[in-house]
Amino acid sequence: MYPFQGEKSFVANRWYVAAVSDEITRTPIERTLLDLPVLLYRAEDGSPVAMYGLCPHRYFPLVKGQLVGDAIQCGYHGFTFDKSGKCVFIPTQNSGSGYTQRTFPVVEKAPFVWIWMGDAELADESLIVDYAAIGLSQPGWTHPRPIHLHLKGRYQLLIDNLMDLTHVAFIHKQIGGSEAFANAKVIYEEADGCFKATRPLAMPWTSYHDFLYGPEARFEGMSQTESRTVFFGPEYITTSGPVTVSIEGYDTVPEGLGRLFFHHVITPETEHSTHYFGTTSREFRLDDPALDEMLREADLDVRTQDVEAIDAIEARLEKAAARERELLVRSDTAAVKVRGIIQAMLDREAA
Amino acid sequence: MYPFQGEKSFVANRWYVAAVSDEITRTPIERTLLDLPVLLYRAEDGSPVAMYGLCPHRYFPLVKGQLVGDAIQCGYHGFTFDKSGKCVFIPTQNSGSGYTQRTFPVVEKAPFVWIWMGDAELADESLIVDYAAIGLSQPGWTHPRPIHLHLKGRYQLLIDNLMDLTHVAFIHKQIGGSEAFANAKVIYEEADGCFKATRPLAMPWTSYHDFLYGPEARFEGMSQTESRTVFFGPEYITTSGPVTVSIEGYDTVPEGLGRLFFHHVITPETEHSTHYFGTTSREFRLDDPALDEMLREADLDVRTQDVEAIDAIEARLEKAAARERELLVRSDTAAVKVRGIIQAMLDREAA
Amino acid sequence: MYPFQGEKSFVANRWYVAAVSDEITRTPIERTLLDLPVLLYRAEDGSPVAMYGLCPHRYFPLVKGQLVGDAIQCGYHGFTFDKSGKCVFIPTQNSGSGYTQRTFPVVEKAPFVWIWMGDAELADESLIVDYAAIGLSQPGWTHPRPIHLHLKGRYQLLIDNLMDLTHVAFIHKQIGGSEAFANAKVIYEEADGCFKATRPLAMPWTSYHDFLYGPEARFEGMSQTESRTVFFGPEYITTSGPVTVSIEGYDTVPEGLGRLFFHHVITPETEHSTHYFGTTSREFRLDDPALDEMLREADLDVRTQDVEAIDAIEARLEKAAARERELLVRSDTAAVKVRGIIQAMLDREAA
Ligand code: FES
Ligand code: FES
Ligand code: FES
Repeated sequence: MYPFQGEKSFVANRWYVAAVSDEITRTPIERTLLDLPVLLYRAEDGSPVAMYGLCPHRYFPLVKGQLVGDAIQCGYHGFTFDKSGKCVFIPTQNSGSGYTQRTFPVVEKAPFVWIWMGDAELADESLIVDYAAIGLSQPGWTHPRPIHLHLKGRYQLLIDNLMDLTHVAFIHKQIGGSEAFANAKVIYEEADGCFKATRPLAMPWTSYHDFLYGPEARFEGMSQTESRTVFFGPEYITTSGPVTVSIEGYDTVPEGLGRLFFHHVITPETEHSTHYFGTTSREFRLDDPALDEMLREADLDVRTQDVEAIDAIEARLEKAAARERELLVRSDTAAVKVRGIIQAMLDREAA
Repeated sequence: MYPFQGEKSFVANRWYVAAVSDEITRTPIERTLLDLPVLLYRAEDGSPVAMYGLCPHRYFPLVKGQLVGDAIQCGYHGFTFDKSGKCVFIPTQNSGSGYTQRTFPVVEKAPFVWIWMGDAELADESLIVDYAAIGLSQPGWTHPRPIHLHLKGRYQLLIDNLMDLTHVAFIHKQIGGSEAFANAKVIYEEADGCFKATRPLAMPWTSYHDFLYGPEARFEGMSQTESRTVFFGPEYITTSGPVTVSIEGYDTVPEGLGRLFFHHVITPETEHSTHYFGTTSREFRLDDPALDEMLREADLDVRTQDVEAIDAIEARLEKAAARERELLVRSDTAAVKVRGIIQAMLDREAA
Repeated sequence: MYPFQGEKSFVANRWYVAAVSDEITRTPIERTLLDLPVLLYRAEDGSPVAMYGLCPHRYFPLVKGQLVGDAIQCGYHGFTFDKSGKCVFIPTQNSGSGYTQRTFPVVEKAPFVWIWMGDAELADESLIVDYAAIGLSQPGWTHPRPIHLHLKGRYQLLIDNLMDLTHVAFIHKQIGGSEAFANAKVIYEEADGCFKATRPLAMPWTSYHDFLYGPEARFEGMSQTESRTVFFGPEYITTSGPVTVSIEGYDTVPEGLGRLFFHHVITPETEHSTHYFGTTSREFRLDDPALDEMLREADLDVRTQDVEAIDAIEARLEKAAARERELLVRSDTAAVKVRGIIQAMLDREAA
C-alpha cells in the first residue's frame, strides 16, 4: 500500500500510544488500533487494561458491557473476563470456559498509555521512546494536556508531512517567520537509532521570542538557532521551535531561553486512518497556565491544518497513485529516508 | 456467509411476512425482500398484490408510477402491468408486449400479508405457520397492532438472539425477574416440525402478574410455570411469558391467568439487513386498549434493545469472524440446533 | 458497463463542456470530468485554464493552493506550475523540476467552456458542436443563463431519456399537451453526422403558444409542427418545442412564431455520475428578461424531474441489469440507434 511495498503497512512490534492517560477511566472505551478493536479501561488499582474488544461468544462489543470489579462482563449474555482476559464466568455454566481473551501489554508513562500489539514476548518496556530525550515529563519541563486528533488518512501521510517542513511556509502561514522553512538549509544525520533533520538559522529577537519567553528575556544582536525534527520511529516524531545555540556578544545562552518541543505521536487506526496525539513540552515558564493554554490553542490550529491537508490527500490517493508516480525532489530527502527505515522494519517483520 | 456454509443464506421456499396488513394500501410501496425490490399494493377489491418492483423497460422503480384500476402504470414511459404482471399497454404501440412481469403469490392472514418468493409451484398456503398453534387471530385471543422494526444485521443474528434467552438477564434488565433467564434449566424438544426450548420455573405471585392479570387474580403459594421458545422456521419464532401450569393448592389454573405469546416475525431484506415484525398475543383481558398500548410499548422497548445489539454485531462481524471462530457453549445448544435446521434447508435448495 | 460492452464507457476524443463560462473565475475550482480531477481557473487575460488537479509531488489538490499571476502554487509545499503546466518553482530548489503538469486544451465559446481530454493531437476546435446549427449565441437568438445540474447516474441514462420522449407524457405531466408525446409518430434520419428523430404534429393555437409568443401572434386554424430531437454526439443533444412549419391559410409562417431549442449538454463526471448543463435558446422576444426567467424556471423543473428519475434508476441498476435484460420496444428505436453510434466510437478508441 502506498507508499510501501506489500499490503501491510503497520509495524507490529512497536510501542504505540493507545490513549492519553485521562482518556482511560473506569468507563470502558472501544478504540480501533492497528485495525483491531481494543477495549480500554482501568482496573480498580488504576492500572490500565487493554483487551481485544469483541466478545468471543457472538462478537458483541465488550464496550457495551459493564465492569464487575476488574473484570468486564459482556452486555449480551454475561460472559465475564478478568483483566488478564481469562473467562471467569459463563452464566448457564456457573463457570468459565477455559478460554482466554487476548490482552495487550500496556505501560502507563504519563501523559500517555502505551500498548504493544505485536509479539508479546518482545514487549520490552525499555523500547518505549526515551522521555528524557524528548523532554517529556522530566524535571524542569512541563507540557499542556495533550490533544487527540483523528486523521482520515494513513499514518505515513503524517510522517511525510513532518519530515518535510517546507510545508510550514504554505500551510501554516499564520506562524511568524514560517517563510524561512521554504528555503532553510537542512542537515541530515542518523544517530542513537534516530533520524534527525536540523535547520540552522540565524535570527534576531522576534515577536515569537516575545510570545514564548516574555520581553524581559530580550537580547540584542543575532542569535544562532537550530530547528530539529527527530524521527524516533513511526510512532514518535518531535519537531522543535528554534533552539538558541549562541547569541552574539553572550558567553552562554541565558537560562530563560529554553527549548520547546512539539510531540507528534502517531498510532495507526486502520489502513486509512490514524490517531494523532500531540503536545508541546518546554523547559521555561513552567508554572504558567495561561501560556499552557496559548500553546495548546496554537498547537491545535497548526495540527488541524495538517489534518485537513492529509484528509484531502487520502480522499484522492488511491486513484492518484494509480495514475502516476509521485514527484520526488530535494526536500523529500528526509521523507524518503524515513520511508526506507519503515520499509526495512516491515520487511523484517514479514521475513 | 456467517454462520452458514455457502454464499446463500436465504431459504427461498418459505412463506415470509411481506408486511403488516395496514402497511399495504392503494398507495404502492417498494420493499426489499430477500434482496429483491418488491412492489406492494392492494387491488380495488382489497386483495394484496406483490410484483417485482423494477420496470422491465429501463429498470425504473414501479413505485414511482401510478395505479390505473388494478394495474400499475410505470412513471417513466407508461408501460402498464395488470395485477397478474401482464404488460397490457405500451404507449407507442397501443398494446402490450407479450411480456409478463414477475408477481409473487401472496396470502393475507390478518394481521400479516404473506409472500412466497421461491418456486411458485411449491407455494402451498397450508405451509404458513399455523395461527392456531401460535394464538394469533384466534377466538379468545387478542393482540395489539404489530410493529415493524428494521435490523441492520443478517436475519440469523436475530434467530441466535431468540434461541438463547440468557441474554434477557443482560440486555433486558428492565424486565422484572430477568436474572432468572441466566440460570434457568432448559429442556429441548423437536415436535410437530418445530424446535422447542422450555424453561420450567417455580414462582410466586409477582409484580409482573399484577401488571398482566390485575391484582384481582392474585393467588397465594408457589406456581409452576413454563417459558417456551418455539422455532417454527427461519421466519417465525414465538417466545412466551411464564405460562402457569399449576398452582400449589389449586386443582386447576384459574382462567384469568391466560397465556401471553411474543411473536418474532423475520423476513430477510438483504444479506445484511432484516425486517423484524412483532406483536404480543394474549388470551386474557381481551377488551383492554390500555393494556394493548402498554404491551406494545414494553415490547417495542425490548425489541429495540435487541435491534441495537444486533446492529452493533453486524457492523463488526465480517472482520471479527475472519479473525477468530466464535466460542460455543452450553447455552448455544438451541441456536446451534436451529442453525443446523436452516443449513439443511439451504442444502436441500442448493441440491 | 451497462449499456455498453467493455469496461470503458467514456468517449475520450470529444469536446465536452467543462463549465458554464461564469463558473470559471480567478478563484480556482476542482471539478471531476471523465473521472479525472481537473483544476479550472482563468489567467489574468481572462482565458480559461484546465490542468490536472492533483499536485505531482504528494497528490495534494491544487485547488487548495493559490494563483500567483497565471500560475498555480500548491498549497502544501509551494510547487508552482504556470498555465501551460510547467513546474516553474520548487521552494528548496529555487527552480522548477523539468516536470510539466498535464493541461487540457480548452476553448471558450460562450456560454460554455469546452475541454478536450483525449489525445491532444486530435483536439481540433472545429469538432465542437456547430453553434449555428443549434441556434446558440447566434444573431437573432438569445438564451437565459445556463443551468448546471448533477446526476447521480451514468451519462447514457440521460441520453436514453432524451432519445425516447414518450417519457414526457408521464414524467413531465405539467407540460401542456405532454400526452401527445406518448403516441406521436416519429421519423428517424441520419444526416450531417447527426441522428434526428422528428415528430410531425398538427396543432391549433394553444395556451403554450400564448405563453411563448404572446396573444398578439395568434393564428386561426391548424398548424403543422415538428418537434425534433438531434443527437450531435454523447455530449450534445437538442430537443425543440413544436416548430411551426406551415399554417392553414397562411403563405408563410409569421416571423414571431420562432423556434425554441432545449440544449442538453452532457459531461461524464465518473462512471456513475454526470454533469448536466442546459439552456433554452429562442429566436423571438429577444429582449425579454421576464421570459428568460420563466423559461429558465420551467426548464429547471423539467430537468429536475429527469434527474430524479435517472438517480432512481442508477441506484438500482447494477443489480437490476444482472437480474434480467431490459425490454426493448418500438419507442426505443432512437435510443438503440444512438447506443450503437456511441459503442462504435468506443470500439474505435479501444482499437
Ligand atoms: S456475545 Fe458476549 S456473552 Fe454472548
Ligand atoms: S422504464 Fe418503465 S416504461 Fe420505461
Ligand atoms: S504536494 Fe504540492 S508541493 Fe507538495
